[in-house]
Amino acid sequence: MSEIYQMTISELDKGLTRGDFSLQEMWQSCIDRVLERDDSVRAFQIIDFEKMQESIDLKSSKKRGNELFGIPFGVKDIMDTYDLPTQYGSKIYEGFQPKSDAAIVASLRYKGSIVFGKTVTTEFAYFEPGKTRNPQNLNHTPGGSSQGSAAAVSDCMIPFALGSQTAASVIRPAAYCGVVGYKSTVGEFSLGGVCALSQSLDSLGFFVRHPSDLAIIRKVLRAQVQIQGPKQPNRIGLVRTPYWESLCLKSQTLLEGVVDDIRRQGVQVDDVELGSVGSIDLVQAHKTVIAFESARSRAYEFHRHCKDLSDPFRELLTDGWQISESSYRKALDARNQAREKLKEELSQYDFFISPSAPGEAPEGLTSTGDPIFSRAWTLLGGPAITLPLGTGANHLPLGVQLSANLHEDDKLVAHALWLYENIRDS
Amino acid sequence: MSEIYQMTISELDKGLTRGDFSLQEMWQSCIDRVLERDDSVRAFQIIDFEKMQESIDLKSSKKRGNELFGIPFGVKDIMDTYDLPTQYGSKIYEGFQPKSDAAIVASLRYKGSIVFGKTVTTEFAYFEPGKTRNPQNLNHTPGGSSQGSAAAVSDCMIPFALGSQTAASVIRPAAYCGVVGYKSTVGEFSLGGVCALSQSLDSLGFFVRHPSDLAIIRKVLRAQVQIQGPKQPNRIGLVRTPYWESLCLKSQTLLEGVVDDIRRQGVQVDDVELGSVGSIDLVQAHKTVIAFESARSRAYEFHRHCKDLSDPFRELLTDGWQISESSYRKALDARNQAREKLKEELSQYDFFISPSAPGEAPEGLTSTGDPIFSRAWTLLGGPAITLPLGTGANHLPLGVQLSANLHEDDKLVAHALWLYENIRDS
Repeated sequence: MSEIYQMTISELDKGLTRGDFSLQEMWQSCIDRVLERDDSVRAFQIIDFEKMQESIDLKSSKKRGNELFGIPFGVKDIMDTYDLPTQYGSKIYEGFQPKSDAAIVASLRYKGSIVFGKTVTTEFAYFEPGKTRNPQNLNHTPGGSSQGSAAAVSDCMIPFALGSQTAASVIRPAAYCGVVGYKSTVGEFSLGGVCALSQSLDSLGFFVRHPSDLAIIRKVLRAQVQIQGPKQPNRIGLVRTPYWESLCLKSQTLLEGVVDDIRRQGVQVDDVELGSVGSIDLVQAHKTVIAFESARSRAYEFHRHCKDLSDPFRELLTDGWQISESSYRKALDARNQAREKLKEELSQYDFFISPSAPGEAPEGLTSTGDPIFSRAWTLLGGPAITLPLGTGANHLPLGVQLSANLHEDDKLVAHALWLYENIRDS
Repeated sequence: MSEIYQMTISELDKGLTRGDFSLQEMWQSCIDRVLERDDSVRAFQIIDFEKMQESIDLKSSKKRGNELFGIPFGVKDIMDTYDLPTQYGSKIYEGFQPKSDAAIVASLRYKGSIVFGKTVTTEFAYFEPGKTRNPQNLNHTPGGSSQGSAAAVSDCMIPFALGSQTAASVIRPAAYCGVVGYKSTVGEFSLGGVCALSQSLDSLGFFVRHPSDLAIIRKVLRAQVQIQGPKQPNRIGLVRTPYWESLCLKSQTLLEGVVDDIRRQGVQVDDVELGSVGSIDLVQAHKTVIAFESARSRAYEFHRHCKDLSDPFRELLTDGWQISESSYRKALDARNQAREKLKEELSQYDFFISPSAPGEAPEGLTSTGDPIFSRAWTLLGGPAITLPLGTGANHLPLGVQLSANLHEDDKLVAHALWLYENIRDS
């Protein structure tokens, strides 16, 4: 039988409801795990054990009203918390104490979920790594930018954690750390109190250890969403992307194996090309939009604290100020056209399947890896889920990415659950 | 000849460039005006004269690089400033000192423009009024939510000020105070560091005393935009809206008179209906979206400080939590359909002309008036400009609203300039 700290949200909820263990015991199990492991993994930026204990005591005396009540979660440190400093991964914000919670944090707390701590983020959720290591192999990057959240969930310190994605900041670290990552549709959740990079691209994400937990989170947060069981798709589009050749062999084999398994379940899978619209490359359009908008969103830091920015972030903002208005508008127009095209394609397909990352987490902690396999999907704005379905040559996790049309989040969660339950062990 | 404090940005720029007056003299003129008037008007939430003087001294020693260099501006107090407290019009945030500037504030400061002070906002930019009075008649509301910014510009304390609009928070106070108000396309400017209400609706705005100043601001902020002179339209759509009967008689006469004048200039003006898409009322759709999204954005204040919220704001958030997911999605779908329809209509029309508000600023300071004439336009997301083109029965200002398609901001500014210069005195 698994230890408490290893359990998914769904298992914890059942255990607490049945009285297999108390809220205090569940928390102690997670705390012990963190104390044992986080000196090595370094997933957390800050933990306040005293405040945490107060919240646990308070919740222990109350009736659990939903599946997330009393459950610990991690908060990416670009999200404001009224009782914990928020540093955005930047020394400019050292010791900064916001006045309020980010909207998503306040909503989860209202439902009775308890903040375990702030998780490490790359600088302003861009490329410059924080201190986190990949729990599957401490010499490898956990990916970025939501690196602490991915690592903490992967290492069974907490059952779920918040992230955000502007390029590949949920999908890539989830794939590298071997957990389930879900990037929501742009605008699906309020980003109030979340450090802004790019208004057209920023969206909220979640890390869990089983896709059924995504259904729980969505139900609790969006009161009227009904939990759907696994849903078998009718037809899937396989998108190898123009970067197929740069994908590691193990990842190619994994994706093709998964597709074969899906076909064996009687589901039609077609090869689909979706890398460009007309002559415009979606990856290039993503790079244009993120640079243009980030430069403007982080104008304060760029103009007043330029020397305190990392080289990669300073370069992004500098590039952003070089981009012409017309190039920026062209990139957004390309996105709009591609969305229309996707809408048409998706009337035939339940979702698209593609690689989550170029391969396993690279060795070393000085880079968080390449976001190439998420840029186009992030530009399009729909939901994406990565499932840990294989391992690579170094025995590190490999993910498979599912993507869907704008606002098809619930349907995609149901399909991901079907795929995870029917393909993983086949 | 007019006093320095009465001058537009364009006139100040010319005067400074010619050496008619120094930067110090310009500032002294505005400071004297504020000292004389703001005890009555109450446009400012906070002014720090010491910090202001430091900035003026610093800029006085430098060469002016653009039209906004050294020019004072007001900042609506829902926008963060690293050196001035930011209170969001709410006692929950009393004395709150952000760590950084909102993106738009940082960008203007970088261009050499100097913050005069924070201007009064309604609570969280919704309905509950702040302390500001209408400078045209102190017993009347200045409108809301950007009430301090509209009043300060109207009363010639500062040449321009920042606002934001989620329902009618730029267009209505500008119309009530008799100034030019410009609400930008959703997403046109970063809202980083601006208190979020509704991610689908929030957009940035500016208050000035002449539409040519809008062209200057856009040029300085969006480096590659060229200033366009006045641009005569070919064809205009007159949108009386379904609320024409609730419009005061003077406003009806004004709008019809303006349209007659436009026709006399050889421009075709057609009556256009644009109040609904299919069976869905756009005003109702706006109410659904603002309530649903505001409830989620301000989850922290609602769940933790509910007793410190005003009745109207608490009601908005309470309503928001009652709205079903499907009603919300239907409202956004209606917006998308209406945008498509508008796009088609606008291939024929250069812009639409409609009322800015139901009439003059109502008497009393307990309400900021009715946002009815902006809700549908704000939902659609395109730019809108109100021009002060008449007066009502109580000799208070009346505005006329111009609206255009998404991202047609520069073209609309050019048309507004043409209309203002050719119609106002005809």
